[in-house]
Amino acid sequence: MDDSRIRKLSQQIELPCFIEQTADLLYLTGLDLSKGRLFVSKTDAVLYVDGRYYGKAKKEAPCHVLLWDEQKNRTEKEIGFDSAVVSYDGYLALKKGFPSVEWTPKPSPVRNLRAIKDPKEIEALKKAQDLTARGIQKVIEELRVGVTEEELALNFEIFCRKNGASGLSFSSIIAFGENSAYPHYRAGKAKLKNGDVVLIDVGAVVDKYNGDMTRIHYFGKPDDRIVHFEKLVSHAQKKAMNHIKPGVKIGELDQIVQDEFDKANVKPLYTHSLGHGIGLEGHEFPKIRFDGEDKNVILKSGMVFTVEPGLYQPGVGGVRIEDMVVVTQTGFEMFSQN
Amino acid sequence: MDDSRIRKLSQQIELPCFIEQTADLLYLTGLDLSKGRLFVSKTDAVLYVDGRYYGKAKKEAPCHVLLWDEQKNRTEKEIGFDSAVVSYDGYLALKKGFPSVEWTPKPSPVRNLRAIKDPKEIEALKKAQDLTARGIQKVIEELRVGVTEEELALNFEIFCRKNGASGLSFSSIIAFGENSAYPHYRAGKAKLKNGDVVLIDVGAVVDKYNGDMTRIHYFGKPDDRIVHFEKLVSHAQKKAMNHIKPGVKIGELDQIVQDEFDKANVKPLYTHSLGHGIGLEGHEFPKIRFDGEDKNVILKSGMVFTVEPGLYQPGVGGVRIEDMVVVTQTGFEMFSQN
Repeated sequence: MDDSRIRKLSQQIELPCFIEQTADLLYLTGLDLSKGRLFVSKTDAVLYVDGRYYGKAKKEAPCHVLLWDEQKNRTEKEIGFDSAVVSYDGYLALKKGFPSVEWTPKPSPVRNLRAIKDPKEIEALKKAQDLTARGIQKVIEELRVGVTEEELALNFEIFCRKNGASGLSFSSIIAFGENSAYPHYRAGKAKLKNGDVVLIDVGAVVDKYNGDMTRIHYFGKPDDRIVHFEKLVSHAQKKAMNHIKPGVKIGELDQIVQDEFDKANVKPLYTHSLGHGIGLEGHEFPKIRFDGEDKNVILKSGMVFTVEPGLYQPGVGGVRIEDMVVVTQTGFEMFSQN
Repeated sequence: MDDSRIRKLSQQIELPCFIEQTADLLYLTGLDLSKGRLFVSKTDAVLYVDGRYYGKAKKEAPCHVLLWDEQKNRTEKEIGFDSAVVSYDGYLALKKGFPSVEWTPKPSPVRNLRAIKDPKEIEALKKAQDLTARGIQKVIEELRVGVTEEELALNFEIFCRKNGASGLSFSSIIAFGENSAYPHYRAGKAKLKNGDVVLIDVGAVVDKYNGDMTRIHYFGKPDDRIVHFEKLVSHAQKKAMNHIKPGVKIGELDQIVQDEFDKANVKPLYTHSLGHGIGLEGHEFPKIRFDGEDKNVILKSGMVFTVEPGLYQPGVGGVRIEDMVVVTQTGFEMFSQN
């Protein structure tokens, strides 16, 4: 990996900073470190690692590498730390370890940079999403009376691992019938019956990037209310997506879905955000929610996120449809349309 | 799950506390919550969750359950928070959200309780370790010239998942030849050659509990230095284990290994701790290290940890042998002896 990401960060930051979130370190240095600190200032970048990683980092990191203990030789008067990640005890340890430094909270200093994906990242995300889509097709082909959610989840995982995934983005959600009414349900011991809706929300990790897709499938004739939900969800998703282009406030996308569901008198059944940024982490900045902390984030070309409206009625079931999109110069592109 | 763990915690804590580490919440309530807060005092226990988890928690939690927003009605003047887990920003949010409360850092308030495993936990750990051992046997059976580390890692994972594991404790370490000299190596693209040492460090998760075992295998005639290392490591491991019984300081176990390797003039090749507590998390309190922060922790019956000395020589290879033990009333029991 070259040092272009570190250089971009150098240009952006006002205050010298310690970066220590694992995914940030991977993003900036290409190294998978369980522990490490990257010092970045306008003029300098130094990666501090302990003996376990020193040899590899020295060879591969796109910046100067020093041993962990050499941090004590830094002479800055003020350094920013990632207050969203560093624990309160970690903050106390910084104060104690560097008594002459003023430690200033700088939450998630790399998130704006990471939110805009470069072509290589987009390629990896497409691969992850393509494999996820193929895995979902495989699950659908395996549906038969009596099969359990867990069996399908296991087969999905094996399929993905055998076809290039290093792992899953999250514990697979495969929900039959009424179980689909719980957005955070996991695959369980339920057996498939005729007439069940099947909700499949899964993701494969390829080249370190996370896939994330949700599909529903009708096994036999579904409940009319589920069919109604699907129409509303699908329509709302399309309407929100068609609003995606550079310059739009991200919260507006969710507001569109809120308004659509309000018109159809089902708004109380929509119980979560519209989506989330995705990349090296399964859930990244920004969160897409009409009233969330990121609602005023402006869409830019290269942002990748999920669009996943849903409607849930306990005792009946739920419908969620989720796709991953990238913002383009003029609108958006959806990954894996099948 | 009954409320016995929460009651034990209630008896132990001096100050009312918010518990929010995911594994702590799972341990105390039986619930897998991505977000939740358990308030525990001498007389009270309330779980706060948002709408996503409320219904399930209300049904299953062994304590009072309230919605997230009702935290604001707490009237305590001082509350402890888990400063090892709560981020600096999280601490600021507590101060802002509860301006009349004094927030006192209480790092890892549940760790002493979790360090002593009950019979059901020990049973789960045994199952995890048994499956891990079977998976290692499977890997060894699959060794042949040209097979890659990655292929074996994938087959190990599939074997475990098909035989009851919900996942792996960590990304598998399968290292051929010189790669075994790096304790944090992962399975890569290296192909097996005659004469390679094969280091296998893997773990299956069963019933939420983590397995963790390391074995080495000689594929063909190994380097004499590796055979020498193995004798030293095996001897040091046995000597340390034979010192395990209630009342002993945990750091002494590592000191024994340090001394053995010192006598054999190989101490610089031993580059990590002797082991770590294990349970719902792959690495838990306490860390077993002669000079570590937990060195004075006193062994008690029911503690479960790994014992994993190793010797590593870059350019040659490494040997690590790792087993999991539980401290008994009179000594220790080792899981999965094969």
